[in-house]
Amino acid sequence: MKIIVDAFGGDNAPLEIIKGCVDAVNEFGIHIILTGDENKIKEVAQSNSLSMNNIEVYNCTQVITMDDSADSVLKSKKDSSMAVGIKLLNEGKGDAFISAGSSGALCMGATLAVKRIKGIKRPAFAPMLPTANGFFMLMDGGANIDCRPEMLVQFALMGSIYLEKVMDIKNPKVGLANVGTEEHKGTELYQTAHELLAANDKINFIGNVEGRDISEGICDLLVCDGFTGNLILKTYEGVAITLMNEMKKMFSGSTKGKLSACLVMKDLKAMKAHFDYNKYGGAPILGASRPVFKAHGNAKANTIKNAIRLSINYVKADAINEITSSL
Amino acid sequence: MKIIVDAFGGDNAPLEIIKGCVDAVNEFGIHIILTGDENKIKEVAQSNSLSMNNIEVYNCTQVITMDDSADSVLKSKKDSSMAVGIKLLNEGKGDAFISAGSSGALCMGATLAVKRIKGIKRPAFAPMLPTANGFFMLMDGGANIDCRPEMLVQFALMGSIYLEKVMDIKNPKVGLANVGTEEHKGTELYQTAHELLAANDKINFIGNVEGRDISEGICDLLVCDGFTGNLILKTYEGVAITLMNEMKKMFSGSTKGKLSACLVMKDLKAMKAHFDYNKYGGAPILGASRPVFKAHGNAKANTIKNAIRLSINYVKADAINEITSSL
Repeated sequence: MKIIVDAFGGDNAPLEIIKGCVDAVNEFGIHIILTGDENKIKEVAQSNSLSMNNIEVYNCTQVITMDDSADSVLKSKKDSSMAVGIKLLNEGKGDAFISAGSSGALCMGATLAVKRIKGIKRPAFAPMLPTANGFFMLMDGGANIDCRPEMLVQFALMGSIYLEKVMDIKNPKVGLANVGTEEHKGTELYQTAHELLAANDKINFIGNVEGRDISEGICDLLVCDGFTGNLILKTYEGVAITLMNEMKKMFSGSTKGKLSACLVMKDLKAMKAHFDYNKYGGAPILGASRPVFKAHGNAKANTIKNAIRLSINYVKADAINEITSSL
Repeated sequence: MKIIVDAFGGDNAPLEIIKGCVDAVNEFGIHIILTGDENKIKEVAQSNSLSMNNIEVYNCTQVITMDDSADSVLKSKKDSSMAVGIKLLNEGKGDAFISAGSSGALCMGATLAVKRIKGIKRPAFAPMLPTANGFFMLMDGGANIDCRPEMLVQFALMGSIYLEKVMDIKNPKVGLANVGTEEHKGTELYQTAHELLAANDKINFIGNVEGRDISEGICDLLVCDGFTGNLILKTYEGVAITLMNEMKKMFSGSTKGKLSACLVMKDLKAMKAHFDYNKYGGAPILGASRPVFKAHGNAKANTIKNAIRLSINYVKADAINEITSSL
């Protein structure tokens, strides 16, 4: 198996990306294609004594930064590490593509430059978020601002297959984000989506899910349009970060605070680890005819290795054929 | 001044509601009309030695529960403490109405049964939420599922006046909830709303605000449609509650945890108080021609007193005339 990885995506590129790839090669026995400035990659590998066995480099000159617009991947930065990775994937040079770079650009590249699974209207971004008792997957996290009801049903189908085949969740519970639990709630889009989801026997639909219940872990997959989903995703992350920062201030602001933190250090670390979405490795962009994964922007080597593991599972589970035949 | 209060709204009714009214009468020198079962109210007041001076009771037989649909306030429960309170307000029997009962029912009552401010298309629900450095107001928190761009501009105008006149915030910063900061982001509704907000010189518009930045307190007023707003509101509350519960478990789960909590008790209490939206008293439903306030469902006496204080300020500031002339 050959996985293509964007060597210049994310805050810790290229060192942590290369490290993650080296670890993955050793642990999973796969091949890697790294996209990006070849000289720079080799220099970083050498100065950190990282073996490039089974890792080939595909040289390209540009990098998409957080200041670039999403469509730069299709227009002004066609020779970027991300655009080239997508092109190689599309040409069948590798089995999956992973990037920790701009979500917007990657979603645009994956939905417009990579072929879609036959029958899928639009691919969607599917990040994982921690809850009180585990995690849930959100679809669409922001790839499709305008959605039609049938798209939400396809998100539910694709997400269910991914959770079952790749994340090992049996018969995943699917909820529809909404302003109330009654079936007639929400805009016309949500009312129709509710009807279609309830009528589809391939989906374990539990009904509407209100914002208050999301973080309690009421469902395994939360379905919504990409505008709503992106605001849920980022509000969710924002509130968690703000509260964690407040806790940090409390514990580090005084001697008493520091002593207090020492006493619960083990639990604090466990809590921090539980609410750290890096451990999920990557969020797939489901609906592309070849696996594309977004790793978190601050991905370290371990996150990249986990994202590679997920992409291997995704390929091995033959999830794309499963999705095709579910339509 | 005479404030109408729903004696049977919320989890702690009627005792805490009556207590809050008694405190408000003593502190602000106002009159109160309590709506609800007269016998029950008098019995609770007597057995708790609460003086009913300057508090009159308007007897009615029904109560809207959390299981009732929002339209029960207009249909099956016209003799409920909430429906009767709204009716009395509409007839000019009091200057403002406060209820801690069902948000959905109160929004429906306030937007359909109370007259609107002349020129206002639809009233909106405007809850306050805590941030890292203070609070922000969210409009619309769920009263209007489908919105047009001009409605979002009216929310911005009404919210700005409320924040300035009632909450004492000079030149409040208004943000538009969106999936990116660039002006062309979002659905057509949001693109047009952005243009209109930017062109309106009565609004201190700071542009689009992403979910990640909301809890950092980037704006004083966040404007969006009621579907999106309700999901932001409840996701926000849900994540905060989940994390606070995790902290509670950490501190109460072991002897070390309890000792740790003792060391930072003062900071813990301050943090809890800061993230407790009860202190804001109530969320106005702005756009109704007379002030309507929703107090939090678990409102205690102090919350009710604070809601009464806000409603007095709202009346005194003549905010409704300000809104009319701003249109």
